[in-house]
Amino acid sequence: MKQMEEMILREGKVLPGDILKVGSFLNQNINTELLAQTGAEIARLYEGCGVNKILTIEASGIAIAAAVGLAMGVPVLFAKKHRTSNVDGDVYVTEVHSFTHGADYGVVVSKDYLLPSDRVLLVDDFLANGNALRGLIDLCDQAGATLVGVAIAIEKCFAGAGDELRAQGVRIESLAMIESMSEHEIVFRS
Amino acid sequence: MKQMEEMILREGKVLPGDILKVGSFLNQNINTELLAQTGAEIARLYEGCGVNKILTIEASGIAIAAAVGLAMGVPVLFAKKHRTSNVDGDVYVTEVHSFTHGADYGVVVSKDYLLPSDRVLLVDDFLANGNALRGLIDLCDQAGATLVGVAIAIEKCFAGAGDELRAQGVRIESLAMIESMSEHEIVFRS
Repeated sequence: MKQMEEMILREGKVLPGDILKVGSFLNQNINTELLAQTGAEIARLYEGCGVNKILTIEASGIAIAAAVGLAMGVPVLFAKKHRTSNVDGDVYVTEVHSFTHGADYGVVVSKDYLLPSDRVLLVDDFLANGNALRGLIDLCDQAGATLVGVAIAIEKCFAGAGDELRAQGVRIESLAMIESMSEHEIVFRS
Repeated sequence: MKQMEEMILREGKVLPGDILKVGSFLNQNINTELLAQTGAEIARLYEGCGVNKILTIEASGIAIAAAVGLAMGVPVLFAKKHRTSNVDGDVYVTEVHSFTHGADYGVVVSKDYLLPSDRVLLVDDFLANGNALRGLIDLCDQAGATLVGVAIAIEKCFAGAGDELRAQGVRIESLAMIESMSEHEIVFRS
C-alpha cells in the first residue's frame, strides 16, 4: 500500500539491530488516517473469504486489528502475553520467543473465544522472524480453527519468515514489504 | 450508553474480588459493532472540545482508543508498561500499582509524542481504583499538555475514584456506570 510505504520513508527510523522505528505513526503514536486506510485495504484484500474472526497479539497489533475488524464487521480477538487473573483456566497456550525482549513468553487465548468453526485472519504490525505469527498459527491449530490468511502492516522480507510461511501455503498480505534497509536507504519489494 | 449496559447484563460475569469479566465483548474478544458505537458516542460527547490526541495505556484500552481516534480523526497514543528496547531514552515515566497483578509497574510515553500543545482525551476500558488513570494524568502534567477529559467504557462507581476525580474538576464520561454488582445483580447509576 502506497500510503504505508510513503509514511515509512518519511517518518521511519532505522536503528542498529535491524530495528525499524515507526512509533510516530504506527505502533505508539497512531496516525488514524493511515489506520483507517490500513483497515480498509486489508478488508478489501480478504473480501469474500468468509473471515469471521480477527486474531492478533497484544499490544502493538491491537489497533490495526481493531481497524480491520471495524472495516470487516467481525470480532477481534487478542491473545495475551502471560496469564492474568481474569482469564479463566480453559485456555490454549503457546510459547513465543521475543528478540526485542530477549526472552520466551506464554501467549494465551481463551478456549471460549477461538472455535473450530472460526475462519481466522491473523493481523499484526510487523512480520520479521515470524515467531509471534507461528505462535498465533499454533493457537488456531489447537482450536481446530481454519486459518484464512495473514495481514501485516510491515514485513521485513530480509528476515525470511514471510517467504518461508508462504512456501508452506500460508497466504500472507503485507502492506509494505522491505527487501533491505540501512540508516540511509529503505528498499521495498515491488 | 444503552448498548454497553445491555451487553454487560447479557454477557458480563461477576467474579469474586469485584472482577467484572467482559472478555466476550470488550477486552479480549471485541465486538466491533459495540466498538464502533463506543467510538461514535465518545466522539459525540467530546465534540467541539478541541481534542487533538487520544492517550490510553496498553493493552486493553487500545482497541477502544483506536475506535475513538478513528471517529474523531485524531492520533492515538498509547503509554507502554515497562521500558522496551525500541523506546528512545527521552520518555516521561510514572509508577502505577496494579491490583490485578499485585505489583507496581512503570508506565512510559515518549516525549516526542506528548506535547505541551496537546489537548488530550484519556480513554480506557475500566475505571475502578483510578490508579492507571492517575498515572496517565501524571504523564499529561509532566508534558505540560492540557487534559480535556476522560472517557471510560465501564466505571465501577462503588470503587470511588471516578467521583473523587470529578470532585477535583476532571471531566469523566463513562458509558456504563455500575453502582453495585454481585453474582446475581448489576445495578447501574441512572
